[in-house]
Amino acid sequence: MKTLSLSKVYQLLEPGPVVLLTTAYKGRSNVMTMSWHMMVEFEPPLVACVVSDADFSFTALRATKDCVIAIPALELAPKVVQIGNCSGRDVQKFEKFGLTPVPSERVTPPRIRECFANLECKVIDTRLVNKFDLFVLEVLKAWTDPAQREPKTIHHHGYGEFVVDGEKITLKSKMR
Amino acid sequence: MKTLSLSKVYQLLEPGPVVLLTTAYKGRSNVMTMSWHMMVEFEPPLVACVVSDADFSFTALRATKDCVIAIPALELAPKVVQIGNCSGRDVQKFEKFGLTPVPSERVTPPRIRECFANLECKVIDTRLVNKFDLFVLEVLKAWTDPAQREPKTIHHHGYGEFVVDGEKITLKSKMR
Repeated sequence: MKTLSLSKVYQLLEPGPVVLLTTAYKGRSNVMTMSWHMMVEFEPPLVACVVSDADFSFTALRATKDCVIAIPALELAPKVVQIGNCSGRDVQKFEKFGLTPVPSERVTPPRIRECFANLECKVIDTRLVNKFDLFVLEVLKAWTDPAQREPKTIHHHGYGEFVVDGEKITLKSKMR
Repeated sequence: MKTLSLSKVYQLLEPGPVVLLTTAYKGRSNVMTMSWHMMVEFEPPLVACVVSDADFSFTALRATKDCVIAIPALELAPKVVQIGNCSGRDVQKFEKFGLTPVPSERVTPPRIRECFANLECKVIDTRLVNKFDLFVLEVLKAWTDPAQREPKTIHHHGYGEFVVDGEKITLKSKMR
């Protein structure tokens, strides 16, 4: 994996792809599927996300304040769904789904070798956790896999229906 | 437009489309382009969004706590970008871009006739506004336009590059 400039992180998350979230707690790594996230600031990149208190990852994220957002391309879609269909309470997901954990540089949870981008994050605001399960994260370090060229991401429309990235269009924009 | 069940709202926003946000303040309606939003709860549907305090809409949203999230299909993409390229300080955007305001049922800002979905929202939490320009909204009433079938949405990758919805895939999922 290759370092990605933090100024480019928003270009990965703003389109709204399904992502994976890794955590580590009491010596054990876990991974969940997540679609409820958004950018909050360009640089340093801040991200908000919702991790339900019913999710096994919630306790880890709240306690350790560390996570990695890993972005899977289309090829991983079947695994991404299976990861979302089970809980880390019952399953060692990295092993079961053949994901390769890669040590992170700035946080304890691992990156995922098979994902085309990995964002090492720490929790910086928990004021909306009790009421909304909403965490604000800062991305400390970002990575991409240069071997995965023009990865297509998936977007969840509910109940296992996903839309894959289609045509690219460019329109003259002042929007960053 | 036809009423949409509130339980289906997340299926529109979870995929991460570029949306329009309408506000009304001191007798004047405005509209901005927005990509930084996410679902926070299924039902009643809660949505978080970031509206920069540099945006003209910020003052209106903070003061009135009312807005409409309108979702444009691909055909509106050139207008969506132009709307994002100018400010309501200088331009009457509804007129300039030929958008048709439709009175809302539960809030003061108008719906947009040309959008395939419209979500009438009120602000329910402002604790992260000062620090992050982050508002939490509740969707009070949702509408879709049955005349727009299988609308394709657009997703912003930065600097005027958008990806259009492509292929649909279905994977056996327990994820709602």
